[in-house]
Amino acid sequence: MSTIKNIGILTSGGDSPGMNAAIRAVVRASLYHNLKVTGVLRGYEGLIQADFIPMDGKSVANIIQRGGTILKTARCDTFRTKEGRELAHKNLLESEIDALVVIGGDGTFTGADVFSREFNFPVIGLPGTIDNDLVGTDFAIGYDTAINTVVNAVDKIRDTAESHDRLFIVEVMGRDSGLIALRSGIGVGAEAILIPEAKVGVPELIHRLETGRKDKASKIIIVAEGDEAGGAYVVGEALKEKFPKYDIRISVLGHIQRGGKPSCMDRVLASRLGVAAVEGLLEGKTDVMVGQINKEIVFTPFSQTIKHIDAEKITPAWLRLVEILSM
Amino acid sequence: MSTIKNIGILTSGGDSPGMNAAIRAVVRASLYHNLKVTGVLRGYEGLIQADFIPMDGKSVANIIQRGGTILKTARCDTFRTKEGRELAHKNLLESEIDALVVIGGDGTFTGADVFSREFNFPVIGLPGTIDNDLVGTDFAIGYDTAINTVVNAVDKIRDTAESHDRLFIVEVMGRDSGLIALRSGIGVGAEAILIPEAKVGVPELIHRLETGRKDKASKIIIVAEGDEAGGAYVVGEALKEKFPKYDIRISVLGHIQRGGKPSCMDRVLASRLGVAAVEGLLEGKTDVMVGQINKEIVFTPFSQTIKHIDAEKITPAWLRLVEILSM
Amino acid sequence: MSTIKNIGILTSGGDSPGMNAAIRAVVRASLYHNLKVTGVLRGYEGLIQADFIPMDGKSVANIIQRGGTILKTARCDTFRTKEGRELAHKNLLESEIDALVVIGGDGTFTGADVFSREFNFPVIGLPGTIDNDLVGTDFAIGYDTAINTVVNAVDKIRDTAESHDRLFIVEVMGRDSGLIALRSGIGVGAEAILIPEAKVGVPELIHRLETGRKDKASKIIIVAEGDEAGGAYVVGEALKEKFPKYDIRISVLGHIQRGGKPSCMDRVLASRLGVAAVEGLLEGKTDVMVGQINKEIVFTPFSQTIKHIDAEKITPAWLRLVEILSM
Amino acid sequence: MSTIKNIGILTSGGDSPGMNAAIRAVVRASLYHNLKVTGVLRGYEGLIQADFIPMDGKSVANIIQRGGTILKTARCDTFRTKEGRELAHKNLLESEIDALVVIGGDGTFTGADVFSREFNFPVIGLPGTIDNDLVGTDFAIGYDTAINTVVNAVDKIRDTAESHDRLFIVEVMGRDSGLIALRSGIGVGAEAILIPEAKVGVPELIHRLETGRKDKASKIIIVAEGDEAGGAYVVGEALKEKFPKYDIRISVLGHIQRGGKPSCMDRVLASRLGVAAVEGLLEGKTDVMVGQINKEIVFTPFSQTIKHIDAEKITPAWLRLVEILSM
Repeated sequence: MSTIKNIGILTSGGDSPGMNAAIRAVVRASLYHNLKVTGVLRGYEGLIQADFIPMDGKSVANIIQRGGTILKTARCDTFRTKEGRELAHKNLLESEIDALVVIGGDGTFTGADVFSREFNFPVIGLPGTIDNDLVGTDFAIGYDTAINTVVNAVDKIRDTAESHDRLFIVEVMGRDSGLIALRSGIGVGAEAILIPEAKVGVPELIHRLETGRKDKASKIIIVAEGDEAGGAYVVGEALKEKFPKYDIRISVLGHIQRGGKPSCMDRVLASRLGVAAVEGLLEGKTDVMVGQINKEIVFTPFSQTIKHIDAEKITPAWLRLVEILSM
Repeated sequence: MSTIKNIGILTSGGDSPGMNAAIRAVVRASLYHNLKVTGVLRGYEGLIQADFIPMDGKSVANIIQRGGTILKTARCDTFRTKEGRELAHKNLLESEIDALVVIGGDGTFTGADVFSREFNFPVIGLPGTIDNDLVGTDFAIGYDTAINTVVNAVDKIRDTAESHDRLFIVEVMGRDSGLIALRSGIGVGAEAILIPEAKVGVPELIHRLETGRKDKASKIIIVAEGDEAGGAYVVGEALKEKFPKYDIRISVLGHIQRGGKPSCMDRVLASRLGVAAVEGLLEGKTDVMVGQINKEIVFTPFSQTIKHIDAEKITPAWLRLVEILSM
Repeated sequence: MSTIKNIGILTSGGDSPGMNAAIRAVVRASLYHNLKVTGVLRGYEGLIQADFIPMDGKSVANIIQRGGTILKTARCDTFRTKEGRELAHKNLLESEIDALVVIGGDGTFTGADVFSREFNFPVIGLPGTIDNDLVGTDFAIGYDTAINTVVNAVDKIRDTAESHDRLFIVEVMGRDSGLIALRSGIGVGAEAILIPEAKVGVPELIHRLETGRKDKASKIIIVAEGDEAGGAYVVGEALKEKFPKYDIRISVLGHIQRGGKPSCMDRVLASRLGVAAVEGLLEGKTDVMVGQINKEIVFTPFSQTIKHIDAEKITPAWLRLVEILSM
Repeated sequence: MSTIKNIGILTSGGDSPGMNAAIRAVVRASLYHNLKVTGVLRGYEGLIQADFIPMDGKSVANIIQRGGTILKTARCDTFRTKEGRELAHKNLLESEIDALVVIGGDGTFTGADVFSREFNFPVIGLPGTIDNDLVGTDFAIGYDTAINTVVNAVDKIRDTAESHDRLFIVEVMGRDSGLIALRSGIGVGAEAILIPEAKVGVPELIHRLETGRKDKASKIIIVAEGDEAGGAYVVGEALKEKFPKYDIRISVLGHIQRGGKPSCMDRVLASRLGVAAVEGLLEGKTDVMVGQINKEIVFTPFSQTIKHIDAEKITPAWLRLVEILSM
C-alpha cells in the first residue's frame, strides 16, 4: 500500500522533444489519482536549490505540442556529491515531496540510481533522449521526432544535391550510438551510413562508391558524430582526395535535431509512459526506468538501462538492409 | 529452390504515404537478387490491361520521400470476375512475370488471396493503408504519416480554438476502425475521442463535458468517420442543443490524411517490408502478407489479415489512457 | 507632443497567425519608448469587463512563433452599444490607459472607428486577418501563413489525386474575398479557381474542363467559400452530373487555415507594423490603420480600410495568369 | 513583330526553391502563345553540349511543389570563353532555338549579358537566388522559402536554447548580403543580427549583451556567413572568452537553406515572372531581367542587376527595428 501523496517531476540532461508531453502525462495521472504534483526546475539543480513549483491541470495545458521542456534542464555537478544529494533529500522532505519522476538519459539515471538507493527514496525514470541509447525501451521519447527532423532536413539537401549532381556528407547526432544515423539514413535513401556500431571505415566507403551504380545524380552519406571514421569533415577530406572530380559538400545538422514539435508517436509514447510512471510509483516500484518493449510497459532497473549496448537495435539485418536499398 | 526471375509490383486500393518507399525497396531488392522487376500500373486494372513497365534502379530514384504512388492505383471490378483474373493471369504469363508483390489493404488482399490460389501464382502483400486495420502487422505503411498529418492539422485548430475558447469536433478518417482517431487524439491532447470500438455515445460525451475541468479554454473532440455516434456534424448538432452557450465548430479533415511526405518510420517500415517481400517470394512464400510484429518480420496468410479485428490494437488500457490524460 | 504613457493592446475578431508577433512588437516598442503597456483580454469584451493585465518584455518572450493570440479574441455585441463603449472608456480611464492598439479586421476597425471619434481616444489598428480583405495594406498579418497552409494541404491532396486520376474540389476560406483562393490556387497549380471577384460560373468551368488538356492525371479546382457558384459541394454536384465518369472528391479545408506557426513574412510584417503603430500613436496619429504598401508604412483612416474593395488585389492580369498556367 | 518560335530555358548557378515553378510557367506560357519550348540541361554547360530536351505541358506537371530544378544546374567555365559561347550559339541555331530564358543569379546574368549582346540573341533572365542580392526585383525566387527554412530551423534551436538557458550563434547563408540574416533574424526574434551591411562588430555585440535585459532565458544571434565579424565560430570564440559563464553553442545551418518545397509566395512569384519573361521576349525585350517591384512587373538591364547594392533592402529603419524588437 502506497503512502505517496506528492510527486516531484524534473527533466535533466539534454532535452528532447516530447519531454513536455511526458510532464503533462505525469501531472494529469497524479491528479487522476488524487496526488499532488510538484515541478522541479532545471533538473537536479532544482532539487538542490529547492526550486519547486506546484502544478495542476492548467500548468500543463497546451504543452503537449511544444518542444523543449517547460521545467528546464541543466547539468548539475553538485548532485554528484554526497553533500549535494543530502541537500536535495532534505529539500524534498521539507516540501513533503514523497517520490520523483525523472525524465532524461543515462546521466540522469546514473544520478537517480544512486539517490534512490542512498535515501531509499522512490524514483522512477522516463527515457527522454533523442539518441535512443538506453536499454529497456524500444524507443526513447524524442527519438522519433529527431529522425523525422533529420529526414526533413536531408530531403532539402537532396533537392540541391540532385540539381548539382553532388555528393553530400551529412553529420547527425549520436555520440555513442548510430541509431539516429541508421534510421534516418534509411529514411532519406542514403547511399551509405557510417556508424560506430558498423565499423565501416573510409576505405570501404570508397570501395562502395567505386563499385556502386554510376547513374546516380546525387549521393548522400550519413555520418554519426561519434563514428570512428571521424565525423563529416574528416570523411569529406578523405573522399575529396580520392575523388577529386566529385563535387563534395558537408553539412552538420547540429542542434535542430533536439528541438521542434514532437511527432505523434513521441507524444503518445510520452503520454503512456508518464501515466505508467505515476502508477508504478503507486505500486511501490522504484529505482527503475519505465519503457515500452514490444508494445508492453516494462520496468527496468536503472543500473541495467545505461549500458549503451544497442546490440538489439542495430543488428546485421539492419546493416544489410542499408546495403540492399542503396542498389 | 525458387525459379522466380521477374517480379511484378502494383499498388491497389486507397493510396497511402510510403507506398513509393515500398515500391523502391521491392525494386532495389529485386536488383540485389538479380531479378527483373516490372511495374504494373493502376493496380489490378493494369494486370487486366497488361499495362506493364520495366523498372530499374533509376526508376525509383528520389521517390522515397514522395506521397502517393508512382504506379498509380485504382479500384477494379473486373478483377473480381473469374474472366478478369484469367485475363490478368494470361497477361502475366505472356510478359514472363513470375510473381507479384501487391501493396494495399483488405480489398487488395482479398483479390490477391483468390488470385494466388486460383492460379497457384506467387503473391506477397505489403500492408499499405492509413487506417492500419489489418491483422498481421503492428503498423501498416502510411498510418504513422497519417496520424502526424492529423496531429499537425489539429495543432493549428487548437491555436484558434484556444484564442476563441471554442469547442471543436474534428472528424478523422477510419471507416471501420478508430485507430487514426485513437492515436492522433492522444497526440493532440483531445478532451474526448469517439471511435467505433469504444461505444462512447453522445450522452456519455455530454456527461464528461459536464463533469470535466471547468478551466479549460478550448476543447477538441476527435470523431472517427465510422463512429456510430454519427460523424462530426451529428455530434455537433447534439452538443449545440445541450450546450447552447458553447461556441462549437466542426472540421472534417478529409483527404489531406492520405497524402504528404511519408514520416521516417513509414519510410523505414516500407523499406524493410519491401525487401522482406522479395526475399519471401524467393523462399517460396505465397498467399501471405508480410508485416512487422514486435520488431520481427512476420508472414500472415491473406485470409487472416482482413478480419478487421483490432482488439489487440485498441485495448481498454488505451481507452483508460485517454480518460486520464484529459484530466 | 504626446502625453501617452500607457498603451492598451487587444486582438479582436477572427484570429490570424502573426497576431502574437504583433503583440510582441507593440510591447517591445512601448518599452523602447519607456511607455507602460497593458494587455486587454478577449478584444472589446475585455475593455468592458476591465480585464486588463500589465505586460513587460517577459510577457511576450517566445510568442513570435506561436499561432493564435495570447490575449484571446472574441466577438462583443455590447461594444456596439453606446452604453458598452462608455463603460469601456471609463475602464480605460480608471486604469490610466491612454491609447489603444487594436489588431483585427473590418469588424474590429468599425468599432475602433466609432470609439476613437466618440471619445477622442487615440486608437491605431493593425491589419490581422487571413482574408487580406482590407484597403490600406498590401498584406494583412496572417494571410501569408494561411496561403502556405492551404498550399501544404493541397499538395497532400495532389498526391492522392494524382495516384487515383481524380478531380478534387477544394474549398478555402474567404467569405467576401477570393484572395486566399487566388494566390493559393496559383501556388498549387490549380486547374481552375472560382472566386467571387471573377464571376466564373459552373458552365464556364465545365467548358474549360471540356476543352483543356486531356493528358492531365489529376485536377484541382479551388473554390472560395464565398463564391457565388455556391461552395465546393454545389460545384461538385454540378460537375458529377456533367462528367459522370470523373472520379470527383470534395475537401473543405476549414479552420486549419486560421492556425499554425506564422510564416517568416507574417512575423516580419507584424513586427514592423507593431512598432509603427506605437510610434504612430506617439506622433499623434489616431483613428487609422497602419499598413504596408509598396514596402512603405502607410496610415489609412479606419473608414477607408473596410470597403471590401479588392479591385487592386485581384486584377484581370491575375485571372489571366491562372488561365495561362493551367495550360 | 516577333519571330520567336522556340524558347530555350535553363537554370544556372546555385539552385533555389521555386526554380521548378518558374520552368513550369515558362513552358506553359510558351504553349499558351503557340511556341515551342526546349529545356537546356545543366545551365550554360547544356548549351555547349547541346544537351536539349523538347518540353510540353506534361513535362512540367506536378513540379510546382518540388525544390531544386528538373533541368539541373552547374557552373560552366567554358561559357566564359569566346569559343564556348560561339559553340553555344551554333548549337542554339542548329536546334532552331530563337530565344533564351535563364534562371539564376548574378553569375548567370553576367554570362547572359555578354552572350545576348555578342550574338544579338534574345535573352531574358529570371531572378532565382536565395540570397535576394539582385537589383531590379523586390524578391528573388527562393528567398522567401529560404527565410522560412531558417525560421523553422531556428524555432527548433530556440526550443532547446530555452530549455538550457543557452546562447546560440546561428550562421545563415549570404556571402555578400545579410538579407537572409536580416529577415530571418527578425522572424525568429533574434537578440542580435550580424550582417556585412550593418558593421556591427563583436565589441558592440558584447556591449549589447552586457546592457540588455537580464531575464532572458535564451539568446539567439544570427550571423550572415559573409559578415566581417568572421562567421559563427569566430564570433563564438570571442563571446566565450568574454562571457565564460554563458553556455554558448554554434550552429551552421548550411545547405538545407537551398532546398525544400517552395513557399506559396515563391511559387506565385515564379509563376508570374515566368509568364512575363515569355511575353517580354515576344514583345522584343532582351538583355534584361524581369522582376517585381512594388507589385509591378519591371524589366531591368542585366548590367544593372548585378551591382550587389542592397542599399534599398537593408535600410537603417530595418536595423533600428531589430534593436527595438530585442528589448
